Amino acid sequence: MQIFLKGALPLLVAATALTFPALACAQTKAAQAAVTPNGVIEAAKPAEWRRIDPKDLMVIDLAPDAKGHPRRVVIQLMPAPFAQGWVDNMRKLIAARWYDGIAVVRVQDNYVVQWGDPNSPGEAADTNGDTAKEKTLPKGLAVVPQSAYTSPASALPKDDSAGSDAYAPRNGFVDGWPIAGDDTASWPIHCYGAVGVGRDMSPDTGTGAELYTVIGQAPRQLDRNIAVVGRVIEGMGALSALPRGPGAMGFYTREEDRTPIVSVRLGSAIKDLPGYEYLSTTSDSFAAYVHARANRKDGFYNVPAGGVDICNVPVPIRQVAR
Amino acid sequence: MQIFLKGALPLLVAATALTFPALACAQTKAAQAAVTPNGVIEAAKPAEWRRIDPKDLMVIDLAPDAKGHPRRVVIQLMPAPFAQGWVDNMRKLIAARWYDGIAVVRVQDNYVVQWGDPNSPGEAADTNGDTAKEKTLPKGLAVVPQSAYTSPASALPKDDSAGSDAYAPRNGFVDGWPIAGDDTASWPIHCYGAVGVGRDMSPDTGTGAELYTVIGQAPRQLDRNIAVVGRVIEGMGALSALPRGPGAMGFYTREEDRTPIVSVRLGSAIKDLPGYEYLSTTSDSFAAYVHARANRKDGFYNVPAGGVDICNVPVPIRQVAR
Repeated sequence: MQIFLKGALPLLVAATALTFPALACAQTKAAQAAVTPNGVIEAAKPAEWRRIDPKDLMVIDLAPDAKGHPRRVVIQLMPAPFAQGWVDNMRKLIAARWYDGIAVVRVQDNYVVQWGDPNSPGEAADTNGDTAKEKTLPKGLAVVPQSAYTSPASALPKDDSAGSDAYAPRNGFVDGWPIAGDDTASWPIHCYGAVGVGRDMSPDTGTGAELYTVIGQAPRQLDRNIAVVGRVIEGMGALSALPRGPGAMGFYTREEDRTPIVSVRLGSAIKDLPGYEYLSTTSDSFAAYVHARANRKDGFYNVPAGGVDICNVPVPIRQVAR
Repeated sequence: MQIFLKGALPLLVAATALTFPALACAQTKAAQAAVTPNGVIEAAKPAEWRRIDPKDLMVIDLAPDAKGHPRRVVIQLMPAPFAQGWVDNMRKLIAARWYDGIAVVRVQDNYVVQWGDPNSPGEAADTNGDTAKEKTLPKGLAVVPQSAYTSPASALPKDDSAGSDAYAPRNGFVDGWPIAGDDTASWPIHCYGAVGVGRDMSPDTGTGAELYTVIGQAPRQLDRNIAVVGRVIEGMGALSALPRGPGAMGFYTREEDRTPIVSVRLGSAIKDLPGYEYLSTTSDSFAAYVHARANRKDGFYNVPAGGVDICNVPVPIRQVAR
């Protein structure tokens, strides 16, 4: 039997991923291409795509997997005006090679994968850690105040979502990013694959040295409480498919279960990295894509929802030659 | 540094999982217990919990993992009046031991894990399959019509969500399950861990022999287009942490990458299975829990959202002695 669950778009739309198993007849395939989200993306014009600067990519090389296969995760850093205090810190941490040698310390199902210094008390299941071995942070990191969790409301110029939002009066897309807002402020949001800054109880305690990514239903209650500083655009499976940790909140309880992070570099420092583009969120094709995701109706979908959650509208990103 | 990301509740609330790393002082801990979702659950009265009948559990034993550890997934079957045609088919398939020997054939990141007969064309990356080896379905399975994707609006007696919903005019909880609706109908929804029935293009082609569970942002566009027949209440990590498939739509392209399903039984046929209870969704504690999830404000959360998506309100489920 033929199963089509075509609703989800991979976070990364590689050229080869746009082909689907053959449908029953060519006519059906043509009809589908005309109205589905993937059909809209395929038909987007070259000028509607925007290049992502390699300087705005954070490339994490994990230790190879049990079969020796390399594991690379590519994160796009949040652009101005959002969360730049933390992003600047992360650039300093990358330049200092501070992240090299840390590890994935926590995987909590339907919540987050978190990485940091395994000798830091915050990264240990027993909250103790081996502080004698804790890494020293580089000098010059900023203490980012609570006010930086939001930006002016003007940063979200219009509400252009296709559905209501339980977490904010307004939402839309700014320079390729999902953003929420109200009459006084705007802020980046916690969707699947979003990267955020772990912190202590006080809201100004996150430096960017401890990071996590979302691997489940969007934990939007974290919006404005934790900084969103980026998103995974490639290699998400290398994080999301890690074994869940057995400790409280998904922390690993044994050192050997942690996944080592070998190196973290800016994309501009990696010679063999491909180029990446996102579909401009002010383009006609993106508007058509949002509409298509909110109103699935084709050979498979019989009942269109008439709306879509903003976190169920992953911004199309593709690999291109560098 | 101490990191608290306390937003998410594990799908299964084991008694031991309710302890968190020590907070800075006892006073803070007491204040937290009073207002957090977990604090509300801890304080729920015994009479507010409802036993799940073992006859309504589908227990899947996967082949042991690479280290020889057993992998068990427990699914609660959907109660009446929702999706009973498919659930009845699944009971017949379990009784016939039809599921024994099938496999997990597809893992698509931020979407679904799917299992079925690997020799069926619908379960192969090339959509061909080895049909000579395809398993014969037991006799007596019903063809469930499209009308069964919804139930009467009266099945959702009141709107009691704590936030707006991009996919439906109304939503709430019925007998422990998240349900959406409008003026004319109600239907179970695709949240993280929901189990649904794979089908062909025609809406009446799903038998229950091919199933999937959601491992990412709720794909609510599938509501009313695919039958939701249950949810994973234990062992989700055994499915969600499987390697993502390299083929189109996450299909595995090599037989050895599939995870074999050794046996599938009703919970009532498994002697060592613990008991399970869910927090009654008409209880005062559940109402307080929904409110707490929509209005996080404690030692960690400074800005409450004021609302919550229904798929971000996992119904508390716990293990008890059988």
